Amino acid sequence: MARRSGRRPGNPDTREAILNAAREAFAERGFDGSSIRAIATSAGVDPALVHHYFGTKEQLFQATINIPFNPGELLPQIAAGGVDGAGERLVATFLRVWDSPAGTAGAALLRSAVNNEWSARLLREFVVTQILRRAAGLLDLDPAQAPLRTSLVASQLVGLAMARYILKLEPLASAPAEEVVAAVGPTMQRYLTGDLSGPTGGGSGASPGRSRTAGPTETG
Amino acid sequence: MARRSGRRPGNPDTREAILNAAREAFAERGFDGSSIRAIATSAGVDPALVHHYFGTKEQLFQATINIPFNPGELLPQIAAGGVDGAGERLVATFLRVWDSPAGTAGAALLRSAVNNEWSARLLREFVVTQILRRAAGLLDLDPAQAPLRTSLVASQLVGLAMARYILKLEPLASAPAEEVVAAVGPTMQRYLTGDLSGPTGGGSGASPGRSRTAGPTETG
Repeated sequence: MARRSGRRPGNPDTREAILNAAREAFAERGFDGSSIRAIATSAGVDPALVHHYFGTKEQLFQATINIPFNPGELLPQIAAGGVDGAGERLVATFLRVWDSPAGTAGAALLRSAVNNEWSARLLREFVVTQILRRAAGLLDLDPAQAPLRTSLVASQLVGLAMARYILKLEPLASAPAEEVVAAVGPTMQRYLTGDLSGPTGGGSGASPGRSRTAGPTETG
Repeated sequence: MARRSGRRPGNPDTREAILNAAREAFAERGFDGSSIRAIATSAGVDPALVHHYFGTKEQLFQATINIPFNPGELLPQIAAGGVDGAGERLVATFLRVWDSPAGTAGAALLRSAVNNEWSARLLREFVVTQILRRAAGLLDLDPAQAPLRTSLVASQLVGLAMARYILKLEPLASAPAEEVVAAVGPTMQRYLTGDLSGPTGGGSGASPGRSRTAGPTETG
């Protein structure tokens, strides 16, 4: 129904007011705790206008942080082949985005997150709710382990972006994508599906500090 | 001979002039290409004074970037048990530094590297010459593979710092150190000593893009 000409619709001031209200809401109350209705109220507009300008709550969130790719499109592609090989596909997709002109926007995003706590909160909320949680669902990870697994994945991907594109550590900075996928893909795969209890591999409880994630099985 | 009272010796202006000259030299010409003599000349002081204030060239470099730990002390501890288990010791040591008050200085260092290219260059040069190269030597890594291996290690460590301390992604941000060591240690170990040619493990040259590191054996 609405114009789909590729041009951004609407009054720029109104758009900006909605985006500011949305940024504040997502950073302060999180994605789940924010509603289009509350954002509209705080921007002084009708909720229908927010939907008209930005679409769904997910699309509004994406517009607030100016992320250079759409996780709603990329994640299903990565997950399409199942969890086997997802580690390699994840790294390959990540490099394809960062090696493209979109990488500049990614670097800007990291910069602003590093520079202020508020941007860091917004990015963290986006990463957790729009990327990691969706990926965990698509890959059918055990919900009890998914948060640790996906945050480990995120740590290696953020580090890859830092080392390759921002610190420009050689030879990682100019290695062909295939080489990086081969080196880092298995790390991703292990974080997604492997044993995370250490190199000895056993669940024999070698380290007392590790019981935190053991769950409620041994309460007796 | 010099005062070792723990108080920093010397005229603060002279110290600052030396540090500025050193920062410029290390960022522009690298660690190997910089000499105490040239730094002294550019700061307008006698080389002996640079040694007197800062000690060795390594110590001067460390003073310029305000890094909150001494790689010259920590790396030999990590390497002491040999390359087996070095991955876990590396992560454990990294977390010990970052979980301590020194972590604040580490975060400031990352911030400044992300914010300006000049700080990024200085940090990169420090990481490569003072940390990765030394670690590769102490662990006796194959010199042909050491740069890729150690830059992969650096990528995961920087990412761990970003995810745990700056973005504060849960549950990684508040997981006990032991749990993080168990999860991330094997990644470090694989980067240091494992097969980096991908999950199929073979050297059968499956990917054409990978020949870049194959070396000059097949020139005929």
